[in-house]
Amino acid sequence: MKIGFIGLGKMGFNMVEHLLELGHEVTAFDLSAEAVAAIAEKGATAASSLQHVVGDLPKPRVVWMMVPAGKAVDAVLDGLLPFLDKGDIVIDGGNSRYTDSVARAEKLRQQGVRMLDIGTSGGLDGARHGACMMAGGEREAYDVVEPMLRDLCVENGYGYMGASGAGHFVKMVHNGIEYGMMQAIGEGFDLLRASGFDLDNQNVARVWSNGSVIRGWLMDLAGKAFAQDNDLGWLGSKVADSGEGRWTVEAAIDLGVAVPIISGSLFRRFRSQSEENFSDKVVAALRHEFGGHAYEKPGDGEGKA
Amino acid sequence: MKIGFIGLGKMGFNMVEHLLELGHEVTAFDLSAEAVAAIAEKGATAASSLQHVVGDLPKPRVVWMMVPAGKAVDAVLDGLLPFLDKGDIVIDGGNSRYTDSVARAEKLRQQGVRMLDIGTSGGLDGARHGACMMAGGEREAYDVVEPMLRDLCVENGYGYMGASGAGHFVKMVHNGIEYGMMQAIGEGFDLLRASGFDLDNQNVARVWSNGSVIRGWLMDLAGKAFAQDNDLGWLGSKVADSGEGRWTVEAAIDLGVAVPIISGSLFRRFRSQSEENFSDKVVAALRHEFGGHAYEKPGDGEGKA
Amino acid sequence: MKIGFIGLGKMGFNMVEHLLELGHEVTAFDLSAEAVAAIAEKGATAASSLQHVVGDLPKPRVVWMMVPAGKAVDAVLDGLLPFLDKGDIVIDGGNSRYTDSVARAEKLRQQGVRMLDIGTSGGLDGARHGACMMAGGEREAYDVVEPMLRDLCVENGYGYMGASGAGHFVKMVHNGIEYGMMQAIGEGFDLLRASGFDLDNQNVARVWSNGSVIRGWLMDLAGKAFAQDNDLGWLGSKVADSGEGRWTVEAAIDLGVAVPIISGSLFRRFRSQSEENFSDKVVAALRHEFGGHAYEKPGDGEGKA
Amino acid sequence: MKIGFIGLGKMGFNMVEHLLELGHEVTAFDLSAEAVAAIAEKGATAASSLQHVVGDLPKPRVVWMMVPAGKAVDAVLDGLLPFLDKGDIVIDGGNSRYTDSVARAEKLRQQGVRMLDIGTSGGLDGARHGACMMAGGEREAYDVVEPMLRDLCVENGYGYMGASGAGHFVKMVHNGIEYGMMQAIGEGFDLLRASGFDLDNQNVARVWSNGSVIRGWLMDLAGKAFAQDNDLGWLGSKVADSGEGRWTVEAAIDLGVAVPIISGSLFRRFRSQSEENFSDKVVAALRHEFGGHAYEKPGDGEGKA
Repeated sequence: MKIGFIGLGKMGFNMVEHLLELGHEVTAFDLSAEAVAAIAEKGATAASSLQHVVGDLPKPRVVWMMVPAGKAVDAVLDGLLPFLDKGDIVIDGGNSRYTDSVARAEKLRQQGVRMLDIGTSGGLDGARHGACMMAGGEREAYDVVEPMLRDLCVENGYGYMGASGAGHFVKMVHNGIEYGMMQAIGEGFDLLRASGFDLDNQNVARVWSNGSVIRGWLMDLAGKAFAQDNDLGWLGSKVADSGEGRWTVEAAIDLGVAVPIISGSLFRRFRSQSEENFSDKVVAALRHEFGGHAYEKPGDGEGKA
Repeated sequence: MKIGFIGLGKMGFNMVEHLLELGHEVTAFDLSAEAVAAIAEKGATAASSLQHVVGDLPKPRVVWMMVPAGKAVDAVLDGLLPFLDKGDIVIDGGNSRYTDSVARAEKLRQQGVRMLDIGTSGGLDGARHGACMMAGGEREAYDVVEPMLRDLCVENGYGYMGASGAGHFVKMVHNGIEYGMMQAIGEGFDLLRASGFDLDNQNVARVWSNGSVIRGWLMDLAGKAFAQDNDLGWLGSKVADSGEGRWTVEAAIDLGVAVPIISGSLFRRFRSQSEENFSDKVVAALRHEFGGHAYEKPGDGEGKA
Repeated sequence: MKIGFIGLGKMGFNMVEHLLELGHEVTAFDLSAEAVAAIAEKGATAASSLQHVVGDLPKPRVVWMMVPAGKAVDAVLDGLLPFLDKGDIVIDGGNSRYTDSVARAEKLRQQGVRMLDIGTSGGLDGARHGACMMAGGEREAYDVVEPMLRDLCVENGYGYMGASGAGHFVKMVHNGIEYGMMQAIGEGFDLLRASGFDLDNQNVARVWSNGSVIRGWLMDLAGKAFAQDNDLGWLGSKVADSGEGRWTVEAAIDLGVAVPIISGSLFRRFRSQSEENFSDKVVAALRHEFGGHAYEKPGDGEGKA
Repeated sequence: MKIGFIGLGKMGFNMVEHLLELGHEVTAFDLSAEAVAAIAEKGATAASSLQHVVGDLPKPRVVWMMVPAGKAVDAVLDGLLPFLDKGDIVIDGGNSRYTDSVARAEKLRQQGVRMLDIGTSGGLDGARHGACMMAGGEREAYDVVEPMLRDLCVENGYGYMGASGAGHFVKMVHNGIEYGMMQAIGEGFDLLRASGFDLDNQNVARVWSNGSVIRGWLMDLAGKAFAQDNDLGWLGSKVADSGEGRWTVEAAIDLGVAVPIISGSLFRRFRSQSEENFSDKVVAALRHEFGGHAYEKPGDGEGKA
C-alpha cells in the first residue's frame, strides 16, 4: 500500500522502517526536519507539510498518525481535514484516550472521513519487527488497511475490536493489566532480594521464562535487565506513569468495576515519585502524638531501617 | 487494692502513677533501679527483685506485667512462677501476641496460677489519666481485678472479652483498624496539600474534629500535630511499625479473612522504610526494556516529579 | 437571619427545623408541596416558587440550596439567577463536585452574585442538632453568613477553607477518609467474627468507643448497630457508594497522589455490588486451565468455603 | 537414571510418564494401588511399599517425592529414612513451605542423607511434556540429578537456586507473582465486559497473546478459556487459594517487604469465598446509622446494582 505517515518519534520511525522493508510506500512528515530526512534515507518520500502528505496519496487516502496523545492529535487532524475527501481514512495509532477517539471519529464522520483508532503494543522492538495492534472504527475502513496490519504485526497479533474507541479502549486496558503484572513481578524480585538466599536474579528470570506459569515477554525482559546488573544499580527507584494507567482506573470508576490491583499498581508508582511523602509524614506524626513514638527527622527519613 | 507491678517504661510508669493517685498500693520493680527509685518517690514500694514483689503482696496476689512483648514476658513469668501460689493472678498488660498469651495462660494454669491478658489502648495520656482495656482469661480472675480496671480506665472503657487470648486478640485487631484509619487520614491530608487550595491543615483538622462523621481522637491528634507546623517539617516520612499490624494480617491469613485495607496500610509503612526500593526499580527497568523509557539514575531517584 | 432555603429532603428539612428552633426566619421551597407544607407547620414561610423565595428576602439575600448534586443544582441556579441582584449570596450546601462549584461560582460572579460552597457533615442527626461545615468562596460572603453557621454547627465545627471549591473539596476528601475508616472498621469486625473467641461485638465497640486510640463517632455508631444484632442479620452485604468516594480517587489521579487505602475502600464497595463477579471468574478459569483445579459451577459460587 | 518415585497424583503421574518416555527407569509407589497399577502399565516398576522402592534402587539412591505439602511429606520421609544410606538423595518436588524444607534438609543431613527442594511449575501439561523446576540444596546433590531435570524440563527451564529451601522459596514467590498477574488479567477482562463495546474476549486474548507486552502463557490460557464461552458461564466466581499465596505474604511480613499487589490478590480470593461478607455488612450498617441510607436485606444482597 501507499500511505501517509505523520509522526516520526521512536515508535513511528521504527514502524515506517518496518513498512518500507516490507515493500510499502510511505510519504512521511514530522515537525522535525531531521527525522524526515533520516526516514527519507531509508526510502520514504519526505513531505514538507500535512498538505504535501495528503497530496501525494491515491484515493481513498490512508494517513497514519503516530503523535503524542492529546492536543498534538487534534492539531494534526485540524491540519489534515481541509485536504481530505470523503472516504479517506485517518488512523490514530498513538495512545489516545478512548473517549477522545470516540469524539474525533464522530467529528470526522461529519465530513465523510473515516477514523480508525489503533492501539499498538510490543514496544520499540515490536514496532520495528512485528507489533500487536487493536483496531476500532468502521469495519469497512478496517478491511481496507487490514493487509498493512498483517504485515506490521506478528502472526495473529492484530484484530478488529469494534466500533470507534474500541481499539484504544482495549489498548488502555492492556496497559492497565501491564501495570499490574509489572508490579507483581517487582514485588516478587523484591522478596527474592530480601530473602537471604543470595539469589541470582538473572538465573531466576531465565528459569521463570521457560516453562513456568508466569512465563511471558515481561519475564524475558526482566532477564535482560538483570543480565546487566543483578542489583539494577544503574537506575533509580522512581517510576514514571503515562496516561493509560490513570485512564484505566478512571474508566473503572465510571463503570463501577473493582480494580484494586491495577489501581494499587498506579498508586505505587505515584508513591515512588514523591520524596518526603506527606501521607507517611502524617502517619508518623500521629504515632508520635499518641504513643510518644520516636520519629525520624527530615532527611534521615528513608533507608535507615 | 494492693498489687505488684513489673515494668516501669513509659506506659508502666504512667499507669502506676495513676494507680497511686487513686489510692491503690503498688510494689514496683524494674530492671532499671532509677525507674524504681523514681516511682518510689511517687509513693510506690520499691522492690529489689521479683521475689521481693511477690513477697510483699497479700493472697491471692495480683501482679501486673508491663514489659516488651516476647522474651521479656517469658523471662518475667519464669522469674515469678517459683514464688506464686495457687489462685494468684498475673496480668500481661503489654502488647503480646495473642497466641503467646493462650500458651502462657495454659502453662500457668498447670500450676494453678491464673493469667489475664489485658490489651491497653489510649497512649501515654490514657495510661496516666484514663485508658481503654480489653481483658481475656478466666472470668473469676477478671472479677477480682475489675475494680482496679474501673479506676484505671475512662468510663465504659474496659471490658471482659472472653477466654485467654481474647484480650490481646481484640487489642491486636484494634491496632489493625488504627493502621487503616491513620493511613486514610494520611492520604486525605496528602490530597489537601496537593490540591492547590492553599489549605490550613490545622483549621481543617479542627473542623473535622467537631461534628463530622470522621471525628475522633486521631483527628484531634492530627490537629495537635498541625498546630506545630502545617507542613510537618519537623519529621521525616519513614513510618515504623510494631508487631501488632503484622500479626493482624497474619491472623487474617490464618482465618481466611480479606483485609486489603489493613494490609495495604502495613505495606505502605514497609514502603516508607525502604530507600531505592527494589520493587520500583524492577518496574522502572521493565519500562526501559520494552519502551526505551527514560529512567532515573540512583540518587536522582525520588522527588523530582 | 432571614434566609431562603431550597430543598427539603432528609438533610434540608432537618436543617431548616434547626434554624427555626434557633430563631432564624426561613422561606422554604421544594418541588414537593407536601414537604413545604410540613416545614410551614414547623414555622417556616412556605414558598410556591423560586421567585417567591427570592422576593421574600431582604437584601443582600441569602439563599441556601440543599438539593442533589448535578443537574438539580444547575436547574435551581438557573431558576434563581433572573431574580437575584448584585451582592446576593447563594449557598450550595449539597455534595456537589468541587470542580462544578468552581465553575458555578465563576458563572454567578459574572452577574455579581456570590456563591459559597459549603460541605456538610454529621449525618441527619448533625443536620438537626449540630453539624460540621466546610465553606469555600469569597471571604466577605462567608463573613455575612458566619453567624448562621455558628448556630447550625457544633462548637468549632465550621470554618472558612478558602476560595470557591475549597469547601466542597475538603468535604470530598472528608468522605474519602470516611470510606477508608469504615472499611478498616469493617475488616476489624470481620476478623473478630472469624476468630473463634465468640466475641460480643457490641461490647467490643463500647470499649473501643471509650479511651481507645480508634474512638470516634464511627465507633459509637458501630456500637449502635451491633446493639440491634451482633450478626447484623437485618441487612445484606451490598454497599452503595455515592459520588464523593469516586471523585476523591479521581482527584488523586489528577493530582498524582497515592491513595491505595481510599481507592481500595471504594473498590471493595464496587466488589460488594457485583454478583458472580467476572474478574473472579477469569481467575478461576485460569486456575482450571493450567492446574486442572476444580471450580465451582454458577450458583454454587459463593459461600461454600 | 533409575529413580524411585513416591506420589502418583495428577502431577506425579504425568511426571513419571514423562520420565519413562524419555528412557528413565522408575520404581513407583502410591497409597493408591490403582495408581501404582496404572503407572506399571506405562512401564514403571510397581512398588508395594517405601522399603520396596528403596530396595530396588542403585546407590546413591534418588527418590522423588510428589506428595501434598505438610504432614504427608513428613510421613513419607519418616517411612523412607530407616532404609536410606549416607549419600542418598531425596527430592521434595511438591509445594512444601520453604521453612519446612530448610528444617527437613537439616534433619536428613544428620543422617548423611541429602535433600533437594525442587519447586515445579508449568501445570499438568508441563509435568507431562516439559516443566519448569527451581532447585535448592547441596550443589553436589543437584549435579547428580541435573541430567534428569534437563530431560523433565523445557530448554533453559530449570536451575540451581541456592541452599536448602531456595528452590521452594523461589517457587513460592513465583506463585505470588502468578496471583498478581492473574488478578490483573481478571480485572482487565472485567473492564472489557463492562465497557459497552460488546467485545469478543477470545479475540482480545488472541491479539494480546501475540506481540503485546502482556503476552505469555496466562494470556494463552485466557484465550483457551474464552474459546469455550465468552462469558465463562460454566463456572462460578469463587476462587480457591492454595498455601503458597498465603506463605508469600507471610514471608513478606517477616522480611518487611511491601507487597500490596500480591496481598491484594490473595485477599480478593478470600473475598470471593465469602457470602454475605461481614466486613461489607459493617460498612453498610455504618452508612445506615449516620446517613439513614437505605440498605439491602439479606439475600437481596448482591447483584442488584
